[in-house]
Amino acid sequence: MGRKVGLQTVELLTKPRLIATYTVVGPKEGEGPLKDNFDEILEDDLCGCKTFESAESKMQLHVVQEVLKKAHLKEQDISYIFAGDLINQLMPSCFMAREVDIPFLGLYGACSTFIEALSLASICLEADIGNHMMAVSSSHFSSSERQFRVPLEMGSQRAPSSQWTVTGAAAVVLAKKGNNVPRVTHITLGKVKDYGITDPNEMGAAMAPAAVDTIKQHFQDTGRKPNDYDIIVSGDLGSVGKQITTELLKEYGYNIGSNYIDCGDEIFDCKSQSTNCGGSGAGCSATVMSSMIYKGMIQKKYKKVLLIATGALLSTISNYQGETIPGIAHAIALEFGGE
Amino acid sequence: MGRKVGLQTVELLTKPRLIATYTVVGPKEGEGPLKDNFDEILEDDLCGCKTFESAESKMQLHVVQEVLKKAHLKEQDISYIFAGDLINQLMPSCFMAREVDIPFLGLYGACSTFIEALSLASICLEADIGNHMMAVSSSHFSSSERQFRVPLEMGSQRAPSSQWTVTGAAAVVLAKKGNNVPRVTHITLGKVKDYGITDPNEMGAAMAPAAVDTIKQHFQDTGRKPNDYDIIVSGDLGSVGKQITTELLKEYGYNIGSNYIDCGDEIFDCKSQSTNCGGSGAGCSATVMSSMIYKGMIQKKYKKVLLIATGALLSTISNYQGETIPGIAHAIALEFGGE
Repeated sequence: MGRKVGLQTVELLTKPRLIATYTVVGPKEGEGPLKDNFDEILEDDLCGCKTFESAESKMQLHVVQEVLKKAHLKEQDISYIFAGDLINQLMPSCFMAREVDIPFLGLYGACSTFIEALSLASICLEADIGNHMMAVSSSHFSSSERQFRVPLEMGSQRAPSSQWTVTGAAAVVLAKKGNNVPRVTHITLGKVKDYGITDPNEMGAAMAPAAVDTIKQHFQDTGRKPNDYDIIVSGDLGSVGKQITTELLKEYGYNIGSNYIDCGDEIFDCKSQSTNCGGSGAGCSATVMSSMIYKGMIQKKYKKVLLIATGALLSTISNYQGETIPGIAHAIALEFGGE
Repeated sequence: MGRKVGLQTVELLTKPRLIATYTVVGPKEGEGPLKDNFDEILEDDLCGCKTFESAESKMQLHVVQEVLKKAHLKEQDISYIFAGDLINQLMPSCFMAREVDIPFLGLYGACSTFIEALSLASICLEADIGNHMMAVSSSHFSSSERQFRVPLEMGSQRAPSSQWTVTGAAAVVLAKKGNNVPRVTHITLGKVKDYGITDPNEMGAAMAPAAVDTIKQHFQDTGRKPNDYDIIVSGDLGSVGKQITTELLKEYGYNIGSNYIDCGDEIFDCKSQSTNCGGSGAGCSATVMSSMIYKGMIQKKYKKVLLIATGALLSTISNYQGETIPGIAHAIALEFGGE
C-alpha cells in the first residue's frame, strides 16, 4: 500500500506508529549533555557479565524487555524483531534474540542499522502482516574498540578526527495504530557511496557523501525543503562529518544548517569528555533518536523530523587489504499526529 | 495486504514472483552431483582477485549483473537489494553494493540469509513499494575457513561431522508481476533456538532444533501436511542435521522423509569429495535453491515447494567465550502458476 515517490523514496500510507522507546547508555554517555534524556544509565558497563560482547547483548535484552513493559505488550504480540550491532556475526543481537520468543531478523548496516531496522519494521506494518514490530540496535565502546581498533589495554593515543563508540542500546515498538505518537511517513533507503577515504579515523568524511546523497534524494523525491522539518538529525557523522555534509548539501542548493544536528555531535561534550569528533556506533543514533528526539516529538517540540543514520561499511580486515571505506545512509521522516 | 495465518506465518496475497535467478559456484561444487544445474562454474576461485573476500564480493557482483540481464532489467529498475554473507561486517555484500546503483540493505542470518533476503524482498513487494527487488547471498570456502576455523595452510584434519563451506553466490529478481514463474505464497520467519550444542563441528545438530521449530510451526499455521509439498528443501543441515530434523519432526506427527532433501546433503558427493557431512554456508542454500529447485519448478517437476534455510548464529569469538551455538531457520513456500 506504500507509494513510491520520486526515484528512491517511499511514502507509507498507513503511517506506522512509534508507540514506545527505551534507551540505556553507559556511564560516560550518562555524564554527557543528554544524560537527562535516557531511560537508564549503567553504573557498570560490563552489566555483571564476563565479556563486553555479553554485556552488549544483555543491554539489548534489557531494552527489549523494558520497551515491552512501556508498550503494555508481551513478546508474543511482536511479529518480528529487527536487530543489529557492529560485532562480528551480530553476536549481541543473536544472543539477545535467543532469549526472546519473537521471530528474529538480523541486520547489518554498521551505524545505519537503527534506521534500517525502523524502515523494514515499518514496511512490514505497511504490508499489513502483523500489528507490532520491534527495532533494536546497540554498540559498546569496549567490544567495538577491541574488534575494530586495538586492545583497550594498549592505551593508544586517539586521532583528532576519531570518534568514540557509544555504549548504549535502544528498542522501539512500532504499531499499526496509536494516537499522539510519531508516525513514519517516508522512507529513503540509501545507496553505498565510496569516495576513496582509507583512514578509519576519518569515518565522518567516509560517511558524509552517503549522507549527502540520501538527504538530497529525499528532498528531490518529496519536493520538501530543509525548513519543512523542525529538526534534521543525522547519526553519527560527528563534528567533521557534519560540517562536510552541511557544506556539500549547499552545492545541491539545500541549506540545512539552521535546524540540523548530529547525534554523534550531541551525545558527548567532546572537549571535557575527550571524545574528539564525537560519538559513533549503532547505539549512538539509536539512543539519541529514541530519547531526546522521540521525547521532543511527544512533547510537541518537534512536529516533523527527518532522521538519517549513516554507516561506514568497512570490515575488520578490509582496511588491511588496502580497501577504501564505503558509506551508506538511510533516512526516515516522522510526523507527530495528523491523519 | 498480507494476512497473518496462525501464530507465525504470513500469507502473501500479491504472491511476489521469482522472475529470474543466477548462480555461480566454485570448481569443487562444479564437480559435484549438481554441476549441470548451475549457470556458471568458476575455474579459479580467486576470480583473479588478491584476497578471498574480494573474490567472494566479485562473485556477488557477477550474479547481480547476470541476473539483471536474464530479467531484462537495469539496476535502476530494482527498488532494493537485500544481501548478506558470512564474513565479518558483510564485507563481500557491502563491497558488491558499492558497485551498483541500488539502495542496499545488509542482512545477517548466517546460512539462513538467503531466505531472510527472499522474505524481506517479498514483503516489500507485498507493501507495494516498488516493482522489483533483488535477493543475494554468498559464501566462499576459503574466506569462511580462515575466519571461522583455521588458516587453510595449516592443513588441519576435519571432524567427521563437519561441513564444507560452499563457494558460490546466487541472485534472484523478485517482481510484482509475471507468469509461468514461482510465486511466494507463505513466509514463516523463525525464532532463535539454542539447545546447548558447543561444538562448531556439529552445526547440523545446532541448527536442527530451529529447523524443526519453524517447519512444525509452518505446518501448524497453514494446516498443510508434508505431502502437500512436492518437495521440502532445507539448506544446509547436512546429513547429520537432516537426520535429526526428520526424527524430531516425527515426534510432532510430521513425516517429511519421503519428499525431503537438504541442500548441504545434495551439493557434494560427500564420500568421493571428502566433504564429510556435506555443504554449508550462505551460498549453499542460495545456489541449490536458485538452480536445481528453481529450474525444477520452471520445468513443472515441482509445483509446490517449501524452502527452509537454517543458520548457526555463533560468532568468531562466542565459542571461545564458552557460549553455546544458537540456531535459526526461516521458511518460504513457493507455488508455480496459479492465481
